[in-house]
Formats: sequence, structure tokens, C-alpha cells
Amino acid sequence: MRRINVIGIGAGDPDQLTLQAVKALRATDVFFLLDKGEAKADLVGLRRDILAAHVPEGTYRLVEARDPERDRTAGGAAYSPAVGDWRSARAGIYERLIAEELGEDETGAFLVWGDPALYDSTLGILEEVLARGTVTFEYTVVPGISSVSALAARHRTGLNRVGGPVQITTGRRLAEGFPRDADDVVVMLDAHQAFRRYADRDADDAGDIDIYWGAYLGTPDEILVSGPLAEVAPRIERLRAQARARKGWIMDTYLLRRRREDGDGA
Amino acid sequence: MRRINVIGIGAGDPDQLTLQAVKALRATDVFFLLDKGEAKADLVGLRRDILAAHVPEGTYRLVEARDPERDRTAGGAAYSPAVGDWRSARAGIYERLIAEELGEDETGAFLVWGDPALYDSTLGILEEVLARGTVTFEYTVVPGISSVSALAARHRTGLNRVGGPVQITTGRRLAEGFPRDADDVVVMLDAHQAFRRYADRDADDAGDIDIYWGAYLGTPDEILVSGPLAEVAPRIERLRAQARARKGWIMDTYLLRRRREDGDGA
Repeated sequence: MRRINVIGIGAGDPDQLTLQAVKALRATDVFFLLDKGEAKADLVGLRRDILAAHVPEGTYRLVEARDPERDRTAGGAAYSPAVGDWRSARAGIYERLIAEELGEDETGAFLVWGDPALYDSTLGILEEVLARGTVTFEYTVVPGISSVSALAARHRTGLNRVGGPVQITTGRRLAEGFPRDADDVVVMLDAHQAFRRYADRDADDAGDIDIYWGAYLGTPDEILVSGPLAEVAPRIERLRAQARARKGWIMDTYLLRRRREDGDGA
Repeated sequence: MRRINVIGIGAGDPDQLTLQAVKALRATDVFFLLDKGEAKADLVGLRRDILAAHVPEGTYRLVEARDPERDRTAGGAAYSPAVGDWRSARAGIYERLIAEELGEDETGAFLVWGDPALYDSTLGILEEVLARGTVTFEYTVVPGISSVSALAARHRTGLNRVGGPVQITTGRRLAEGFPRDADDVVVMLDAHQAFRRYADRDADDAGDIDIYWGAYLGTPDEILVSGPLAEVAPRIERLRAQARARKGWIMDTYLLRRRREDGDGA
């Protein structure tokens, strides 16, 4: 039986690997690295560094493939179908990789930034491959330090306050409105800086919000900014644009926290 | 300057320690272990095992203290003040531990189950100690695999669905109503099995909900149950009661997922 490890490798700091992840790396015969194009070449490089640091050379094979292009221009209602097409295209690639590159009794692995459970498509795609029925395998998930946990740790703050909830959502959703029922909101996948909508002190729905923002968390390029949103939003916009221009890509995430009248204890 | 490491040690599986956590353990002179009474003695034992496995004997000191009793009988509006009293009592203990047991140039550490950013009071208490001003120190947070990540990994499911949000909340909050704006909800600190309210297929607010439940995640006692909530809720109640009676304590968490008409892809 073929086996697949889906391994969370942390948010960017190689030391965020768990011991369980290191063991899974060492038990893997074939690593599948998917390249998302020039802009993300750094990330493939970081994955290679992790392998070089933890797995003896000559004990594994590396198989690289090109990720299908995702139609990011499709907005609004078109979002889901575009995602669906992309998932199907990716499932086709994964299916071929597993069938053609992995021996019957071998173990393959996909390395996932952060935690495979948060805004990552690998598990859904593997389920789609299994549903197609042309190739069978068992798979295991190794949890990783998410960028959400990394963000909170670097800012030394809790994600929730005493007994309160925290919502993890996307920039797209935040642009539609601040979640009800949660005063602490972590935002991922925000290419358009949706926080700006809440940075105007006088806006009706702004309230008093603090932001804890981080980019390239855990890497030498890490940038952290925190403070009252209305005050620091312009600085975040500037730093973000500069970093993105310099490196060609950016990975950032942030926590928005509505101030409460009854104090802020975590 | 005194230094404190707040180290997330994962949800129960010793292999969920990160390399960063192991390094922080090895750089620590004094570990503060707080005992929450008989019922949690197992958890103190697990912490000792982690130290024994990763830190050379004779390179550190262990200081144990008794946690103040938390008034868990106080319900409703009384919750916050009781928490406040408890935090103050705990801050007093932490203050004494740091002032009396940690040398001026030493590093102390608190080991936190899961991730220090989720439903843990350590960071808030350290801030309270600093605010009192009688003892100064620098502190660092090492993120850990949360029980939320561990739960998702063991069930091999994402926490969110494509582009959708996930809310992390408490049993107390869930008992008040299903969060608006989130169809995927992770529930922690639920001593009263608040999911039962949503297990009645015919209830107005039940909808069609799946549950992914786990107890003692990552330990040899781990129990996992998943399925349609209305079907599996009685089994979870029974297993939970049995396990709790057998071990004297239980740590469990679960994901509730409202089924959508447009499919379930993660």
C-alpha cells in the first residue's frame, strides 16, 4: 500500500518543525514539491533547506512539479468555480505524481507551510484523488505551527480574551463586514489589505480596533507592527508594499482586536 | 535580567514538541510546574517525562507550586470576577516564584499545553506580574501545536472550508447560540457538552451538523469520534463519561461543521 504524509512544516522558521514532523520526513521516500512559479521560488528553496537539514542525503527522492495557474482575476461569485477548476487540475497532477513516481510500498510526502488544517488545499485534493479511484493510498496528517500561532507568539498575545471566541477568516470575508460574535479576528489570505476599511476612526463600524500584523513570520525578513489600527494602518500599507516590491511576494497575516470597555485580559 | 520562556508543548503527544521548544527547554535553568490538584497529576507527570526526554539531568531545577483553586461554581455574570480573583491569586504565586526561585541572570520557563495563545492564562498573568512592578523580566513565547490543530490532523480534515471562516469558542458560548458568520466552529473548555443542544435533528437551529470530536489527543488514551451530530452525540456522551470516570479528568475538544448545500471541500 502506498502511503502519503501531509506534513505541516511551520510558518517559516525551520525550528518550528515538530519532532513528529522530523520523524515523518525521515520516513519518507519521495517528496513532492510543487512550484507556484517564480514568485514562490523562495518557498521551494526553504523546503529544500529543511530536507537538507533533517534528512540524510541519498535516502529520498525529490519530485518537482508545476502547480496549475489559479485564476485569481475571477472575483465575487466566480470565486468558487475558479477554485473548483484549479482543484481538479491540481488533483490530476497529484494523481499522476502518486501513480507514476511512488512505488507500491513507498511513502510520499507533501510539505505544507503552517498547519495543513488552515487554508490549505492539500487534504481536499488528496480526497478528490482517492474519490477518482485510479490510485489508492493511506495518508496521515502531521499538524504544524500555523502562521496564526506564530503571529500570536511573536506579538506575545493570546488569540482570544478570557472566555471569548476568536474567528479566523479571509481578507475577502473581512471586506464584506466585521464578523458578528467575535471581537478577535485573525485574517489570512488578504491580498487587498481589507483592514483599511476599519482604519477610519470615525466610520460607524470601526469601533476601537487594535491590529497585530506580521509578515514573513519566523524568517530573517520578519516584520511586525502592532498598535491602534487607525494609527498604524498607513505604516503597515507602506511596509507591505516595500517588502512585496523587494522580495516579489509577501505572506502576511494579522489579528484585529476590538477594544472592550471591561478590559483586555487574555 | 531575568528571562522567562513560555513554551507551548503541544496537545499531549511528546513528539509534538517543536525543535524551537526543545532548544528553549535546554536553555532553561528553572522550570515552574503548577499542580492543579490530584485530577491533573497526570499532566504534571507528562511534563516531567518531556523534561526527562529532552533536557540533560542536573542542568535544571524544578519548582512545583500549587495552583489556586478556581471557583468553578460561579456561573453566568459571576464568571468574570471569579476569573479575575483567580488570576490575581495566580499572579501573586508567579511573582513569588520568579522573585524567589529565579536568579538575576537565569532563565525560567512555564510549560503550556497546546499553544500559549489559545485559552491559556499564562501570558495575561505574566503581564499582570510585570504591571505590579516588583519584579522585572523579559519573556519569550514559543508557539505550540494546539489541541485544535491536533484534532484536525487526527481527523484528517481542514478547520475551514474553501474561503470560509472558522470560529474557535468555548462550551459556555456555544450553549448561548451557534455563532453567526461561521459554519465551522471549534469548541474548547466544554465541561457540559454544549453540543447536545444541536444534536436534535428537529430543532430549529440544528441544521445538519457533523461533529469531529477528540479526547486526550495524541496520547495513548486518545478517543476519536466523528459523524452526523444527531447520530453520534449519545456515543460521545457515553465515551466521555466512561473515560472521565476511569481517569478522573478529561481534556476534549471538537469541531462542529454545518453541512452546506454546495459541497464540503476544504
